[in-house]
Amino acid sequence: MNKMEQLLIIKIGGNVIDQPEALAVFLDDYARIDGKKILIHGGGKIATDISHALGIEAQMIDGRRITDAETLKVVTMVYAGLINKNIVSGLQARGCNAIGLTGADANVIAAKKRADKNIDYGFVGDVEQVNVAAIRQFLNTGLAPIFAPLTHDGKGMMLNINADTIAAALASALCKHYETRLIYCFDKKGVLASADEESVIPQLNLRQYQELKTKGIVSKGMLPKLDNAFATLQAGVRAVTLCHAAQIQRAVKGDLTVGTTLTL
Amino acid sequence: MNKMEQLLIIKIGGNVIDQPEALAVFLDDYARIDGKKILIHGGGKIATDISHALGIEAQMIDGRRITDAETLKVVTMVYAGLINKNIVSGLQARGCNAIGLTGADANVIAAKKRADKNIDYGFVGDVEQVNVAAIRQFLNTGLAPIFAPLTHDGKGMMLNINADTIAAALASALCKHYETRLIYCFDKKGVLASADEESVIPQLNLRQYQELKTKGIVSKGMLPKLDNAFATLQAGVRAVTLCHAAQIQRAVKGDLTVGTTLTL
Repeated sequence: MNKMEQLLIIKIGGNVIDQPEALAVFLDDYARIDGKKILIHGGGKIATDISHALGIEAQMIDGRRITDAETLKVVTMVYAGLINKNIVSGLQARGCNAIGLTGADANVIAAKKRADKNIDYGFVGDVEQVNVAAIRQFLNTGLAPIFAPLTHDGKGMMLNINADTIAAALASALCKHYETRLIYCFDKKGVLASADEESVIPQLNLRQYQELKTKGIVSKGMLPKLDNAFATLQAGVRAVTLCHAAQIQRAVKGDLTVGTTLTL
Repeated sequence: MNKMEQLLIIKIGGNVIDQPEALAVFLDDYARIDGKKILIHGGGKIATDISHALGIEAQMIDGRRITDAETLKVVTMVYAGLINKNIVSGLQARGCNAIGLTGADANVIAAKKRADKNIDYGFVGDVEQVNVAAIRQFLNTGLAPIFAPLTHDGKGMMLNINADTIAAALASALCKHYETRLIYCFDKKGVLASADEESVIPQLNLRQYQELKTKGIVSKGMLPKLDNAFATLQAGVRAVTLCHAAQIQRAVKGDLTVGTTLTL
């Protein structure tokens, strides 16, 4: 088998998007990355602010946010419109040939509306299929796809989706064709062993993770992100790193002293 | 020279976008069109409604609407987010492999901020260059590009742009590579000879248009649209038709009893 080409998949969260200066630094760093790359962005607080300004109340059931029809409109506007085009135009200005996508565009990610017998999450999607051929076509023509956390059901409905989940789904599908690295940028310097922001665990394998989980050491909010991340390694992703967006340059270079690197 | 492949460029205005049922009919018709095609959509009243709900006052100077920074955010949300993805997901549901684009995506349309010594229009763009290679790449891979009326300045700024202008710029650039037809769908059945909605002028050449203009017969609001349209014919576009969105199927088939067909 030929040596596979490398692909870097990076996810940035709302904490970067909400701070224009942090975003500008990140875009500088991202534009400089050579080779094939994909960026997935989260939503940030802007959607909440716009919803609030429009008088749309957040719907919560059992502590979970529900995407009702009005909220879906707001996130489609904010994620696919405002945030995505801000990033795309910002990267174009930096010489990176970015193209903004939702799952609906070129049908790159097909999903179905989440069916849960206990909770109606509203217009939330679970990934059904990643259109690898279409994404490879973009990458092969030198484009840098920028994914908003939205997809569609193939029946005309847009669906809200977690950006971490998109990143994991893309990585798991594309790792059959590329030597794929996945980097999650978030508001911590890595997976923390305690409340101390500097207590970064440099490396974590699946067994160690399960131990930390059992002991309740990993914060509850981190569990879905880490479960997703380990699943991508099992699918064949070469490496997963969790770090702060400000550390992205070093993480891209493979500096293992940065963030938390996950292994099986 | 080989016979060139055909390309159909269709622009729909806000009147279709604002009516879900009319839009659904249009999307049915559009999805059925064979061959290479590009759709450009206008903005509709949604942006005005959202601006109003957010408490953003329309800025007018000398009777012209100004795109200030807040309005730019709203149109980026509404045009590139809500409307564009509604159309893209609607077409995907109908088996048409649509991809939503602004001028910033893949740098398909580069523009510069309008410089007018008399009026500061704000964040409004004039087309500088159409990236024909990128658009052809999309068309050649079977994608149907859906353009929102937005572009960028290459320096990180999104810019508002008239959808008619985008349609004309795309047609003028792409007609060097395709036998290009341009259809403007609007809220009339064609160019009218009087206030009577049925007084459609079936064909109009440049000399006749200039006469009608001199006599003040063509309504003022139609002048920029028609000036744009005649310019595309001069650039090499094969035919330009103006008709109602409900007539699109017949117009696509080349039925000359539908709408107004422009010739040089």
